[in-house]
Amino acid sequence: MSFRIGSGIDFHQMVEGRDLWIGGILIPHTKGALGHSDADVLLHAICDALLGALSLGDIGVHFPNNDERYRDIDSKILLKHCMKLIQERGYKVVNIDSTLTLQEPKIKPFVPQMQETIAGICEVLIEDVSVKATTTEHMGFVGREEGLVAYATVLLQKI
Amino acid sequence: MSFRIGSGIDFHQMVEGRDLWIGGILIPHTKGALGHSDADVLLHAICDALLGALSLGDIGVHFPNNDERYRDIDSKILLKHCMKLIQERGYKVVNIDSTLTLQEPKIKPFVPQMQETIAGICEVLIEDVSVKATTTEHMGFVGREEGLVAYATVLLQKI
Amino acid sequence: MSFRIGSGIDFHQMVEGRDLWIGGILIPHTKGALGHSDADVLLHAICDALLGALSLGDIGVHFPNNDERYRDIDSKILLKHCMKLIQERGYKVVNIDSTLTLQEPKIKPFVPQMQETIAGICEVLIEDVSVKATTTEHMGFVGREEGLVAYATVLLQKI
Ligand SMILES: [Zn+2]
Ligand SMILES: [Zn+2]
Ligand SMILES: [Zn+2]
Repeated sequence: MSFRIGSGIDFHQMVEGRDLWIGGILIPHTKGALGHSDADVLLHAICDALLGALSLGDIGVHFPNNDERYRDIDSKILLKHCMKLIQERGYKVVNIDSTLTLQEPKIKPFVPQMQETIAGICEVLIEDVSVKATTTEHMGFVGREEGLVAYATVLLQKI
Repeated sequence: MSFRIGSGIDFHQMVEGRDLWIGGILIPHTKGALGHSDADVLLHAICDALLGALSLGDIGVHFPNNDERYRDIDSKILLKHCMKLIQERGYKVVNIDSTLTLQEPKIKPFVPQMQETIAGICEVLIEDVSVKATTTEHMGFVGREEGLVAYATVLLQKI
Repeated sequence: MSFRIGSGIDFHQMVEGRDLWIGGILIPHTKGALGHSDADVLLHAICDALLGALSLGDIGVHFPNNDERYRDIDSKILLKHCMKLIQERGYKVVNIDSTLTLQEPKIKPFVPQMQETIAGICEVLIEDVSVKATTTEHMGFVGREEGLVAYATVLLQKI
């Protein structure tokens, strides 16, 4: 059996006047994530973990942030594209684990929807996608609510 | 063979007047870790990695920090509970790797005790538990000794 | 089949008057990485991930930063030593994924050379080594160009 691991990390500033998309879900909040695309920090970290597992470059290589085609783009489309690349090489996702670090808002109520969305795109069961969350205990730029960070790890298997 | 990967990250402030529990061991220091439980940043990161590998939620879901039952609780009890959940689902730990980022104190002399403690709870050999440590070279909130961060990755296997 | 996972994280300050070695490659830049060795943040993270996968301690244990033998040492030598330890225990690298967080300079043009260098030392194919990069969107000490951080995950297999 042939396995591969990948890991991704993504950062976005939190600012007023933007939507807050996390894990493919629009989260009601006074601030949103700044970025060229919809700035979905969780989907970006997962994209990078998928690409990294097969050494396919990173999200900045595939979807440059100065390319008008990706302005405000739904990151679910980016994730779907990364999955296509994985599948073309004969791999499937075994499981995805991820952690969001953000001070506010509480994203727990939205986790099941995120899992369902990600599992659908990655063609795995809901229990194969984990989304965890933690504050940074008010420390650093995440603790000051200036930004949020997502970490993802994936295990792939050759079909 | 069926494998799963999980990853966890945990943050605690360092303050005077608290004990410093790391990896189940009480570390002599002028500051300790602030938190609702004993604030053992390393055991919490490992708990989250175990839970994440099987999509069982996160430590905040299982042990809410507003629940009086968990006030100042020994995090070894929390880790034992996470292991129970893993085992109930038919999985065992293959190996755990972890990294502590903290500026002070030096935790190297305590690493063997931490490994032994964690290995005992997770029912693996001492050499299946790795505890590494690094400073952040005086940068950020860890570098200013305001807090500490732990990262853990785990590999699980279906028995 | 016997697998192990490892993960590493490394931090260095960016200062004037030092070279910037990343992934074994000298990157032209106005600042370099401060450290006792050549301060190659990416190779150090990979060393730590390799060591961690087999619970062999961390880079600070193997190459103390107060040991004159390691002053300004080429980190490729350190990586080679870590690989030797892995191989002596009967393991090989399946794949390595890594992420650099730095605000500047752009390291994309140097990624193929880094992959080739790391793959050569770790005795894997170029496509088994992934090097990704991201800014922190101007946040934190990385965003202020005071330092850089590297994250690495590895999958090992018993030969
Ligand atoms: Zn992003
Ligand atoms: Zn904690
Ligand atoms: Zn280093």
